[in-house]
Parts: sequence; structure tokens; C-alpha cells
Amino acid sequence: MTVLARGSRGARSEDVRRGNLSTLLRYVHVHGPTARSRLTAVLGLNRSTIGDLTSELVAAGLLREEPGRPDRVGGEAAGGGRPSYVVAPQSERVQVLAVDVGVTHLSVARVGLGGAILSRRDRSYRRGTRRHTTVTAAITKISAELLAEVDGAVVVAGMGVAVPGMVRRHDGQVRQAPNLGWRDVPLGAALADALGLPVSVGNDADLGILAEQVRGAAVGVDDAVYLTGRSGLGAGIIAGGRPLGGRTGYAGEVGHLVVDPAGLPCHCGSRGCWETQCGEERLFELAARPAGGGLAGVREVVAAAAAGDAVAAAALEDVAGWLGRGTANVVHVLNPEMVILGGALEEVLRALGGTVRSAFDSTALAAPGEQVRIVAPHLGSDSTLVGSAELAFDPLLSDPLLTLSRRHAS
Amino acid sequence: MTVLARGSRGARSEDVRRGNLSTLLRYVHVHGPTARSRLTAVLGLNRSTIGDLTSELVAAGLLREEPGRPDRVGGEAAGGGRPSYVVAPQSERVQVLAVDVGVTHLSVARVGLGGAILSRRDRSYRRGTRRHTTVTAAITKISAELLAEVDGAVVVAGMGVAVPGMVRRHDGQVRQAPNLGWRDVPLGAALADALGLPVSVGNDADLGILAEQVRGAAVGVDDAVYLTGRSGLGAGIIAGGRPLGGRTGYAGEVGHLVVDPAGLPCHCGSRGCWETQCGEERLFELAARPAGGGLAGVREVVAAAAAGDAVAAAALEDVAGWLGRGTANVVHVLNPEMVILGGALEEVLRALGGTVRSAFDSTALAAPGEQVRIVAPHLGSDSTLVGSAELAFDPLLSDPLLTLSRRHAS
Repeated sequence: MTVLARGSRGARSEDVRRGNLSTLLRYVHVHGPTARSRLTAVLGLNRSTIGDLTSELVAAGLLREEPGRPDRVGGEAAGGGRPSYVVAPQSERVQVLAVDVGVTHLSVARVGLGGAILSRRDRSYRRGTRRHTTVTAAITKISAELLAEVDGAVVVAGMGVAVPGMVRRHDGQVRQAPNLGWRDVPLGAALADALGLPVSVGNDADLGILAEQVRGAAVGVDDAVYLTGRSGLGAGIIAGGRPLGGRTGYAGEVGHLVVDPAGLPCHCGSRGCWETQCGEERLFELAARPAGGGLAGVREVVAAAAAGDAVAAAALEDVAGWLGRGTANVVHVLNPEMVILGGALEEVLRALGGTVRSAFDSTALAAPGEQVRIVAPHLGSDSTLVGSAELAFDPLLSDPLLTLSRRHAS
Repeated sequence: MTVLARGSRGARSEDVRRGNLSTLLRYVHVHGPTARSRLTAVLGLNRSTIGDLTSELVAAGLLREEPGRPDRVGGEAAGGGRPSYVVAPQSERVQVLAVDVGVTHLSVARVGLGGAILSRRDRSYRRGTRRHTTVTAAITKISAELLAEVDGAVVVAGMGVAVPGMVRRHDGQVRQAPNLGWRDVPLGAALADALGLPVSVGNDADLGILAEQVRGAAVGVDDAVYLTGRSGLGAGIIAGGRPLGGRTGYAGEVGHLVVDPAGLPCHCGSRGCWETQCGEERLFELAARPAGGGLAGVREVVAAAAAGDAVAAAALEDVAGWLGRGTANVVHVLNPEMVILGGALEEVLRALGGTVRSAFDSTALAAPGEQVRIVAPHLGSDSTLVGSAELAFDPLLSDPLLTLSRRHAS
């Protein structure tokens, strides 16, 4: 949470007010229903300022206020026995659409302010090249279904889309998504045209770490990596408390670290990339399963191994070893405090955490290795979808009234 | 350059003044002799404030002022024909000791405010484990020689030390330096005791990128990696304009990325680490040269290859290929704008830049790969030494008068 600017003179007071509105709305979005008295303490502003700011956000339809007890610890009253107003996000009135595009799945959800998933559709596909126009059409169709569930009073602030590939930030152009077979696809523009909504597109792993940092395993952690295994392998990185995107937002392509020059050919054109050794497809191949089974297929292999299927068990063991050793590579570059294993990797970690850790320890240098926590995501397989929603909410949270007036005007 | 805070009220004015003194001193330290009129323009402060700040730094013995023309473009007068005072660092009066500890070399220098190396000693060693007490004694002895060259009026602000290993920031403890055979060596404390100076210790690659960012190839570049090859391989990383240290400062250990599970054993205990494929020692082995030749040995191999030595040429070609492919790994994680190849890697780049680049291009994903500049350091083999000096100057530059009063009191 950023520290609020206090006081101001002349031309800057409008900026300070906007900043305060943003900070207050973001706090309630992240922490849920909160007592006014708690807000004054947390945000370091006096009661009347908090009252003014809250009233403005209530009038705009973003927050609601009610007397009484808050239902969460974040809203604990500051004492004194006097009942405090509880401030809550207008989750039903202010929403976004969140999209998670996978190679073998597509999820689209309506998410309310405050982060609750209100409604969702999940589709599965067989692995294989999918035309981006087909994906755009599917997203548009499902979005229309989801929006038909709500009345006209609902403000839809925008759409966030996660893609397993490299995305140019400013216009949502998918530069390269090897597992989808996409190259230079104008996904953001196509969806914005089709839906008439502001659309932001991001890399799936980048959105996974965003969600885990806002409301998951990495809350309060300044140096963390979210590794996602979903067909390919990618990393979302937080370094020094900030997202690490690199020069153009393509950082974290750890699936294409070459870990074995004599390894398997990769669809990227190289050979022996890490994802060819421990991605989903490698697991299916080793376990003698059909390709393209997605997360459900991975869970089937894990269950079979637990039930005594020796081929499945050996396949998992092999993949778990590569997962641990490759994670050491990532830790050697970044020295994080925490590595979160998401998507299919979570299943491998839960099934064979000991193998993952010992393979990691056998490869990692002691100094950066000994302190790393290797954990499952708190948001399970929804980290990426939740991160898409956070991406879509960000303009509204950054400048609530301006963004809202633009949405109403459009 | 940070933006100056302008104006203030009450209790904060002292902080603002300190911040302004720091910014002004740092500007002159980095840019050299500068006209007062230029300082008013660059720092956004009025003439009389610049005059007051300058006078204070002159009185403290950190800067000197003289009428007349500046000798550098940074000091160009702002026009009007009126002669402006030129402000210059007191390089002879304010100095630090800079140390570069290598596996096959030791450099110690006296560096003046402004960054000029005033005097230096360079020693070569055969490769092999060196006791840290021996290294501490050598640094202490050479430091005494260098300090005997100056009179008592010189203020020695501190010492900066570069080490090829993982360093704990706050106390200069060397946690692990595999190529030196060091584990948990209290180098910073030992040198501070021996010399009676404040001593800061840093990783050699981290100090290399620091120097290249302040006064080298990476000036103005927000996402850059300095790869250094000196016995081992390491990376200093700038991400989003800031140094990337990781949780405990151990980030950048790219020499221990496992690039070939069937590769050579590494002294770190693992196998097939990148530095076993393209470090100096691998070059010597492939070129049938004795181990431990250091930078001079690398230059000999390059010269021999140019003169028609087929074994040397093949060895260089092999190492250059691994250098390019491994650099792609680093780029996949970090998506930098620039990769600077320092130490022995600079020699390989200058000899076989085409091989390095084509090996890089054959492995790198197009999106992050196509925009990377792979360059030599502007400071040549001195990046690390210059970075050590910057590390030693940092407390003085951050709070000039406080640091100075402490040095005088000690």
C-alpha cells in the first residue's frame, strides 16, 4: 500500500485528492469491508477527510456504507465502543470481465470490485494450434452471455486477458505465443473492437504473480517468482517489490532456458528448453498418456501414480526432478524469497514435493538456495484469472472518478 | 539523476538541504567540472541556492570553484557572455581506496572524487585457493603503500572491495566465493579492523554494472546486464533503473545456470554449469594452455588464434558459441535492452562477435532477442575497480557533510 500524500497547496490539491481516493478504494478492494475508524488508522488521514473521501466514492457507486460490525479482521473497530461505519466495495454494481486463455482451456469470468468471482465459464480444448480469430470469437460470445446475466445499472469497467506468451504492454499485441502458434496477434485491439470495452492483455505468469502478491501467497513478499506450467512454462517476477517486466515486458520466459543441448526439440525452434523437460506434454509422453490433456490430464497422472501406476509414478518423478533443478536456475538469476509453483506445477509439487526440493537443493548454491520457500499458490489454479481481473480493475483503482466518468460517457 | 525536492516547511528543510547537497555533489562527481549556470539549469534550483550549496561544499573541501571556461560539455555556459564559475570535484583532496579481488589478480587503487584513478597496483597470481587472511594482508600492505603517497590533508572516505562471490550487504561477509574456495569469510570486518576505514564489499559483477551505469556503456539504460567472465561467470543486473540484488544480494549467479546435465563437473558441486562451458578455464583447456592464465592468458589465446593457431581458434569458437547461447538464457529471464560482456568475455566478443551473436540469435526468442544490444564495457577491464570506488564514495555522496564530519572525527 502506498503512503498517502498529506496536505498540499494550490494546484496540487486535486492530485492529492485523487491519490487519496485511489488509495482508499484500492484498500477496500483488496481487504474487503473495513470500518471507517480502521481506514483513518491505516491510511493516516483524519476522520473528516476519510468521511469526505468515502462519501465521494459512495456517491460514485463504487463503495457502500453501512453502520455496524465489520465481518473481517481488516475492519476491526479502533475501540471506544461507538459503532463505526463499515465501508464495502460495490461488488455487484462494479465489475470487470477476466479472461484466461490457455492452450487447452479458456476461462471467462465476471469479477466484482473486491475480487469476488461472481460468475464464470470454463471450456476445455484439445491441444493444437487455435486461430486467434476463433479465440476472440469465443471470448466475445461468452462475455455476452455473462453480461446478459446483469442489469443495465452495472458498470463494466473493462476486460483483462491472460495469454501464455509475450505481450506488448501498451496495445495488447501478442508478439509471440509459441504454445498457441501465435505471432504478432492484435488480441487487445480485436477484443476492444468486438466488445466496446477497454481491454488490457498480459502474460499469464505475470498476472499469476500479480494476483498472488495482491491476495495470495506473496502478500508482503518483495522478491517472488510465480512459475506457471500450463502447456508451456513461464515466470512472473516481483523484484524489490515491483513487477519485473524487462525492457518491453517479455521477461520471465524461463521455459526457454536451454537446460540440455542434447534435449528434445522445442516448438520455439531451439532444443532442450526447460519446458520440453518438465512441461505438461513431457509428463504425458513419459506417462504414456495422450498429448494435450491439460490440467485434468495432469491430475489423472498424479492420481494413477498414487494408485500404484508405476509408469505414471516414474514420469512424475522425472518431471519433478527437472522442476527442482530448473527452479535452481531461476533462483540463481533472481535470488527470490519465494517461488510459487502454479498450474500443473502445483500438482507435481503436491504429489512429489520432496523430490522437487531435493533436486533443487542438489543444484542450488547454498547462499541463495537455503532461504527459498517453494510453495503452492494460495489461489490454486485461479491465480491467472484473478490476476486478469486485477489488471482490468487497475485503471479504475488508479483514478476512480476519471475512469468512471469515461465509462459512463462511452 | 534524481529530481530535487524544492522548498519545504519547518522540520523538513534540513532534509531538503541535505538532499540538495547530495544531488549537487553527485552531479559534479559524475559529470566533472560544471559551470554554476549549468547546475542551476540541470538541478532546477535558482542561482542563489546553487551558490549557497556550492559554497558549503567548497568550505567542506569537497568541491573547488574557479572563474572561467569549463573544459567539458557538461559545463557549457548557459549563454549571455558573462563568465560563469566552474565547479569541480576536489579529486586530490578527497579520495577512496578501490579494490578488485580476482582469482588470478588483485588490483588496489586510489581514486579521487570525480572518479579518476590516481594511483594503482596490480598483482597477478596463479589460479588456486588463496586464504582470505593472505588476501586481507596483501590489500592492507598495498593500501599502506598507496596512502604513503599522499599527505595528511587528504581525506580518505573509505574503501570499496569487489569479490567474485556472494556478499551479504550489511556487513561485507562473503557468504560463498566458489572460485576462491571461500565460505563465510568476514572480509569487510577484517579490512575495516586492519585499516581503520569504513569498508563496503560487493559482488564483482554488481559493481561492474554500477560503474557502467554511472559512467560507461549503460548510462541512461534502465534494463541492462553486465556479464563478467573472470575465472567464474557472474551477472550484475539493472532492472527498471534499479540494481536487482534479490532478497539478500545474491542475484546474478548466472555462471551456475545448468546448461548441460551431461557437462563438466563444477567446483560448486553441480555439473554442466554455464561457467564450466565458457569460463576462462574452459578456454585454456580447449586451447591446450595451462590453467589459471587469467586475462593475459585469454589475450594470448586470442592473439594466437588470429595468428593462425587452429587449436586456439577452435577453442575460441566453442567458447563463443556457449557465450551466445547462454546469453540467450539470461535474456529470456530478464528481457534487458543491453548485455555488456566484461572481463575475459570482452576479449571473446571482440575476437568473435559474429559467432557470439549468431549463437545468441539461434537460441533466443525473437521478441526479447531482436532488440538486445550485446556490447563491450566502456570502462574495459576496469569496470569492477571503478565500481568499487563508486561503492566507497556512495555514503559521502548520499550525505556529504555528515559523512565528512564522521571521517574527520575518526
